[in-house]
Amino acid sequence: MIKEIKIQLRDDKREIPQDISKVKFGKTFSDHMFLMDYNSKDGWHDARIVPHGPIPIDPGAMVFHYAQEIFEGMKAYRRPDGGVQFFRPYENIKRMARSGERVSMPAMDEDMFMEALRKLVEVDKDWVPSAAGSSLYIRPFMFATDVGLGVHASDSYLFCILTCPVASYYPEGINPIKIMIEDEDVRAVRGGTGFAKCGGNYAASIRASKRASEKGFSQVLWLDGVERKYIEEVGAMNIMFKIDGKIITPALNGSVLPGITRMSSMELLRSWGYEVEERLISVDELMEAAKNGKLEEAWGTGTAAVVSPVGRLTYKGEDFTVQDGGIGPVTQKLYDGLTGIQSGKVEDTFHWMEKLEK
Amino acid sequence: MIKEIKIQLRDDKREIPQDISKVKFGKTFSDHMFLMDYNSKDGWHDARIVPHGPIPIDPGAMVFHYAQEIFEGMKAYRRPDGGVQFFRPYENIKRMARSGERVSMPAMDEDMFMEALRKLVEVDKDWVPSAAGSSLYIRPFMFATDVGLGVHASDSYLFCILTCPVASYYPEGINPIKIMIEDEDVRAVRGGTGFAKCGGNYAASIRASKRASEKGFSQVLWLDGVERKYIEEVGAMNIMFKIDGKIITPALNGSVLPGITRMSSMELLRSWGYEVEERLISVDELMEAAKNGKLEEAWGTGTAAVVSPVGRLTYKGEDFTVQDGGIGPVTQKLYDGLTGIQSGKVEDTFHWMEKLEK
Ligand SMILES: Cc1ncc(COP(=O)(O)O)c(C=O)c1O
Ligand SMILES: Cc1ncc(COP(=O)(O)O)c(C=O)c1O
Repeated sequence: MIKEIKIQLRDDKREIPQDISKVKFGKTFSDHMFLMDYNSKDGWHDARIVPHGPIPIDPGAMVFHYAQEIFEGMKAYRRPDGGVQFFRPYENIKRMARSGERVSMPAMDEDMFMEALRKLVEVDKDWVPSAAGSSLYIRPFMFATDVGLGVHASDSYLFCILTCPVASYYPEGINPIKIMIEDEDVRAVRGGTGFAKCGGNYAASIRASKRASEKGFSQVLWLDGVERKYIEEVGAMNIMFKIDGKIITPALNGSVLPGITRMSSMELLRSWGYEVEERLISVDELMEAAKNGKLEEAWGTGTAAVVSPVGRLTYKGEDFTVQDGGIGPVTQKLYDGLTGIQSGKVEDTFHWMEKLEK
Repeated sequence: MIKEIKIQLRDDKREIPQDISKVKFGKTFSDHMFLMDYNSKDGWHDARIVPHGPIPIDPGAMVFHYAQEIFEGMKAYRRPDGGVQFFRPYENIKRMARSGERVSMPAMDEDMFMEALRKLVEVDKDWVPSAAGSSLYIRPFMFATDVGLGVHASDSYLFCILTCPVASYYPEGINPIKIMIEDEDVRAVRGGTGFAKCGGNYAASIRASKRASEKGFSQVLWLDGVERKYIEEVGAMNIMFKIDGKIITPALNGSVLPGITRMSSMELLRSWGYEVEERLISVDELMEAAKNGKLEEAWGTGTAAVVSPVGRLTYKGEDFTVQDGGIGPVTQKLYDGLTGIQSGKVEDTFHWMEKLEK
């Protein structure tokens, strides 16, 4: 339990977007943010909810130099009964602790974390949108605040939660994306930080994503950093293929982010009787399957888009269309299944949802 | 040329350390800092020198989430004639541009960069210490300031220069360090960001350094991320070995930082007639040489310590002493040669030094 969360409400309330479909992802913030400090002497302290806005930070703070920083991405949904619910928040809380361990940052107590989430979303409850597929995107993150230029673990950190109302990624129904298999830049390697949601992985990925987008692709598909041969994941999604009737997804090998949508998708697919394999899958195997017509479906899974069908794949100039560039039946079923549970329209038999109201 | 550098001097001048040997590295900052903004529309603009201190930054700024951030580390020295000189500043400026390219950040014009360095050091000239081995450590850095949670290259950046008076790393003469060859964590991999001075590499390195320091080692020696077999570099230094009369240093393969002290050391050593090889060197070759008594010397090279003798090496529990834990003759000669030129006590036949006074 947090001893006390001081709450300072904003006077100049921002305007809640009326038409959520017009809101760009992660650009419109709710009124408030949660902040809490840590140092080794006092532990976690000074929990507060304050108006979202700039805070004074010394440019000598370690975060600007050595990127000791981790984050999470999760969502809360408006139920048909008007209530609000979080999708598997404890999974994000646990993953953030694992990310922190990799870059020598302290974990926050799970109950304290959940309390902060609840309190912040409660304060900004009106910001949780209700349009189909919309949600409140929640961004907890933490960064090193020690001022000094020596490279070592910071002693002090700031923990912060921001929230953004977001529309469905696909206002007119889900839309297949084109992805480019990246054969030059590497995002992460076993032994490195790939499994952790820390800033450096994303900085490493920006150049390739930019090049891909200049060529008309919406995402990059990463290969492993050791052999540059095995499929890892998409920019901000894990990847799944349906090949010859079986569903295959790259195993978690240390350099792939253990996605919560990935895990949930596997549980749901298995509950429906599909065979799901987690294993190494080489780009050659994938290309071979595509050539022989055995690549039946491909999709990405992630918090932002939930499920994204892949309509086209490119590797070293070779181009493959999946499902004639359309949406496969398993992809659609998975999207409907997950978003149904998240929005509260389908029964939550897995007990994934955590209600805001206790 | 920068159009105008606005200068706002501090009223409450800080105290310049009298005894520089008591100053901890990177913890004492000079009075002022240089700031300049970038966005794609206006380019570089609003150059200013202001009192060093916190600045307001939105927690939604991309730097806190995706670590789009790069930095440099360089030094200015007080000459015996009282003047001030920079060590190879254009090399740092060029490296920062290369770092930026890797993480999709804009480069600053070289002359503008040099002008900013000159102006800032001029304003805080009294902060450049004069004790033997001391210097003004200069930290240019740049980070992404777009506010938003989508992962892409930021459109706006803040460029900043901080300076810190620093003592010789070795107030009582250079001191051999103990290093541990890391066989679990990986810092960088070919195709990744290892050659760039970007924050993520350092975040990835903190855990191993911490573990090593808990075991009594002052630094970690990294192996390559692909085969975990080839020597790469130390925490914040490149590494050189003298084996059987020859000097060997790992080749620049994309995951090693191209150190400016490394480059300068090679030039100096070659000018003295030593044979210097840049090539792959496996940990097995190194251990073999240590066992056979052919590992004559080992040292690190980097801006902070200039040259650091390695007195002990540990790999998977096996322990080797180099030069009986003392300082080898080449290590000492290199240290004296480099610091002599830097401090202005030895003639700068390589034209490495850039005088502050034009
Ligand atoms: C690199 C990466 N992979 C995969 C994912 C998907 O993970 P999740 O389903 O938990 O959102 C994300 C986004 O969170 C990501 O950033
Ligand atoms: C990872 C790493 N390697 C090597 C070096 C040495 O480079 P330089 O000699 O340019 O300081 C540094 C420090 O700058 C570093 O951070």
